Formats: sequence, C-alpha cells, structure tokens
Amino acid sequence: MNRVVLGLRYSGHSFEGWQTQTHGNTVQDTLLNALEAICGERPVIHCAGRTDAGVHARQQVVHFDTSVHRPLSAWVKGVNNHLPGTVVVAGAKYLGEPFHARYAAISRMYRYYFYASPVRDPFKTHMTWMHYPLDLLRMQSAAAMLVGTHDFSSFRAAQCQAKSPVKTLHRVSLVECSDHCYVEIHGNAFLHHMVRNIMGALFEIGMHRQPLAWMQTVLSARDRSQGAKTASAAGLTLWEVEYPPEFGIADLFNPAQLDFNP
Amino acid sequence: MNRVVLGLRYSGHSFEGWQTQTHGNTVQDTLLNALEAICGERPVIHCAGRTDAGVHARQQVVHFDTSVHRPLSAWVKGVNNHLPGTVVVAGAKYLGEPFHARYAAISRMYRYYFYASPVRDPFKTHMTWMHYPLDLLRMQSAAAMLVGTHDFSSFRAAQCQAKSPVKTLHRVSLVECSDHCYVEIHGNAFLHHMVRNIMGALFEIGMHRQPLAWMQTVLSARDRSQGAKTASAAGLTLWEVEYPPEFGIADLFNPAQLDFNP
Repeated sequence: MNRVVLGLRYSGHSFEGWQTQTHGNTVQDTLLNALEAICGERPVIHCAGRTDAGVHARQQVVHFDTSVHRPLSAWVKGVNNHLPGTVVVAGAKYLGEPFHARYAAISRMYRYYFYASPVRDPFKTHMTWMHYPLDLLRMQSAAAMLVGTHDFSSFRAAQCQAKSPVKTLHRVSLVECSDHCYVEIHGNAFLHHMVRNIMGALFEIGMHRQPLAWMQTVLSARDRSQGAKTASAAGLTLWEVEYPPEFGIADLFNPAQLDFNP
Repeated sequence: MNRVVLGLRYSGHSFEGWQTQTHGNTVQDTLLNALEAICGERPVIHCAGRTDAGVHARQQVVHFDTSVHRPLSAWVKGVNNHLPGTVVVAGAKYLGEPFHARYAAISRMYRYYFYASPVRDPFKTHMTWMHYPLDLLRMQSAAAMLVGTHDFSSFRAAQCQAKSPVKTLHRVSLVECSDHCYVEIHGNAFLHHMVRNIMGALFEIGMHRQPLAWMQTVLSARDRSQGAKTASAAGLTLWEVEYPPEFGIADLFNPAQLDFNP
C-alpha cells in the first residue's frame, strides 16, 4: 500500500464542511470523486482538522492509503483537473506509515478574519462583517487571557467528540491590518466550534456589551451556556498545521516544488 | 428634481455586467430593484464606466435624478438592505446638475490582478490564474510602451461605441506583490475591452510567445486582428474614477463618513 499525503486549500463557501454527507456537497466527497477518476478507488481519507460548513482552509493536510501507484503529478494536476476551482490540491508526497494527517500533527493554527464597517465590503468574502464599532484594545486584552492550558468547556459545542476539554493555546493575538483584522489562534488541538465560540466572546467584549473581566468568568465557568453565541463560520480559516519537520509537510504548500508543465 | 450620486462596490462574478438586460441579472437591474423598494421609482442611472460580465468595481460612481427626497442614510443603508452582499452602496450625496457620473469624470484607473502558479488558488477569485511562468520584467517594459496618446484601435472590441479610438494613458505599471501581481492602468478614457486586450498582449510577451517589440507592432497596426486574444474578465477591477475635487466624490468611499447606526 502507498500512503499518499495531499496539501489542500479550499474556500468554504461552496461546501457543507469537510466531512462526507449523504448529499455529497462536502470537501471530502468532492475530493473522493476526483480521486476516483484518477485511481478508480474511493479511499478512506484522514484529515488534520475537520472544518465546519463555510470554514476555509489555507493549509489542510490529508492522507489516504491506496494500492494504486501514480506519479506525484497525477495526484496534483490530475486530481485538480477533476476538482472545481473552490478546492485545490497544492502538493502531494508519498510518506510511510508513521505519518498520520491527524495524529502526527503537533499543533494547529487558525485565523479568524473580520472587519468593522457601517457597510459590507463585497471583496471581503472570507471575513466576517461586523456592523458595530469594535474596541480592538479590549479584544486584545481579552484574547491574552486565554493563552495557556485550560478547560475550554465554555467554548465547546454540544456535539464535540473530543476526549478531554483541556487544551493548550500557545498564542491568541489580534492583528490589525489596513482595513480589517484577524485573530490568530495557535494551539495543540481544538474543540468543536472552539475558535468561533472564542470569537463570539471577543466580539461581545469588543462591542462593550460585556466587561473585559467577563472572558475570565466565562472560561472559569466551564459551561457553554455561560458563553457568547457562536461567531459566523465565514471568517474562519484553518491556516496551518504543524508536524515534525522530518515529514516535510510545508513543502506541500510551496508552489516552487511544482513544475508549470506536467 | 434631486440628483443623487452613489458610490458602488461590486464583485463581478455574480453579474452579467453593469448594463440592464432583459434577464435582469446585471448590477444596474439589481440596483434598480433596490432603489424601487426605497423610492418607488426606477430612475435612469448613469455610471462612470460600464463594466463587462465578470468585471469588478472597487469604486464605481453612478447618479440619477429623482423627485423623491430621502435622507442620505436611506440611499445607503436603506438601499443596501435590498441588495445582495455582492454589491454595496458605499456612500451617497446630493449634487447639482453640473455633476454627471460619466461626463464629469476626468480619468479612470483600472487594475488587472493575476498570479502565475502551477496550481489555482481558491482564495484569489478576483485574479486571473496564469498557469505559465511569466517574465515580469518583459511585461513591465512592454507596458511602458503604451503610455501617452495613441490610436488604440488594435485593443478595441468590434462592438465599441466610442467616437474616437485615440485615448491617453497616463500610466501603465506592473506591480509585483508577495504572491500575485497587478497592472495599474490610468487613462482619460477607455475603449471597450481595451484593458483586457492590453493584458492579452502583455501575457503573450510575458510568456515569451512574442518578442518585446511586438507591443509596438500591434499598437502601430491599428488593427484588432493583429492583437492578442482578450484576457479573462476575472482579473479586472474598475479601481477609481477621478472627478474635479469640488464634487468630493472620494468621500463616497470613505466609511468614516458613515455612522454605524442610522
């Protein structure tokens, strides 16, 4: 068997999330259809982080085992020829069994993009539009309270299947760009809806609907019902997944590794 | 009568261009439907520059005359409530009859965004994907040949209704960003498909399919059949329209001019 690892990018708008569904309108189903056209099989695909409906991925990593051997260009350009423009294979490599897209991952980084403006911007389709003024300094202070190892039950969706609600966040930082912002969250692993529930709380504090100290209150409560509502999926992107460097996963997203002509 | 001036932004993907069509799927039709909901009329709308199907506008300026008087917030937030997220009114003002969205314009600036990569990027939906390596220095040199007052017949679509093919380009410059490029073209006025036909020629030279001097050959020929094929609409954005400063048109696109709450 060959273990094929793919680097994927996708825009979440067009998909009902990562995970296979009977209606078939998911990233996994779309990828399976394209793989079947290339290798005649529908392999079991494992991914680094399942994304919800509407969530984007700049660097999603997946792997599958197949008895079929194809040159790497078939797994990139061949598969891409059978994919819509909303999802793309950025790179491919063969790796041995020690690699696993989910279990070999050391950490994940998400970015949540948003902009505050009285009017919507039709070009910021990967960002959440906030039509309230936001106090970014307060949001930055609140974000910093989440760094470290905590029980994140207050930010956990009811349907979450993680074994433990205790996760470690290495960094939660708000970055202000010219006309938009993003919150970058880097952690070892994430609960279901965790980033969007954190963003919901940050927005409440940024809109001055809750005091700054409320973030600590919510975190300590370990009770989802004490938190804010879940922020929109539109602003969320799976930005990067970290693996032990010997797997060379970063190469999957480097276009210089590919030839222009197959 | 009141002359209402609107600043518009739109993503071209969703529309069959600016100009009204019987099927109604154009920016103008969409705006007329929203205006009718606010003022009960379908006014005659004049725009600074008609855009083709798929072409975007960062700063499109339109005006219309109406007997109805509404506060400016109605022309912005009221109209936006009746528009899809793909087109937005960024600002509104009342101006007297000397202002005309088309005839008062002094110059137009377009940007054409593109990226060269072996694989498509699902987040660069407002750019043209070139799956060939491009020689950007050659493209820059070729672009510079177009500056000045010329007969641009070689870059003019057959259906163009302009009175004269002679136009003045103040600047044609190629800008390289981290992982993409754009060509910024600033001129007094443009022929139908002129920017896309210029881009088609620049791509031929960038791909080394034509020598650098070919740009001058095409320009001098004054014959569309001597030129390259028209580049995709997807990369083209009407970036800015310049008016005499006393009209204060730039304010229409400054969100700081609007209140967050109407």
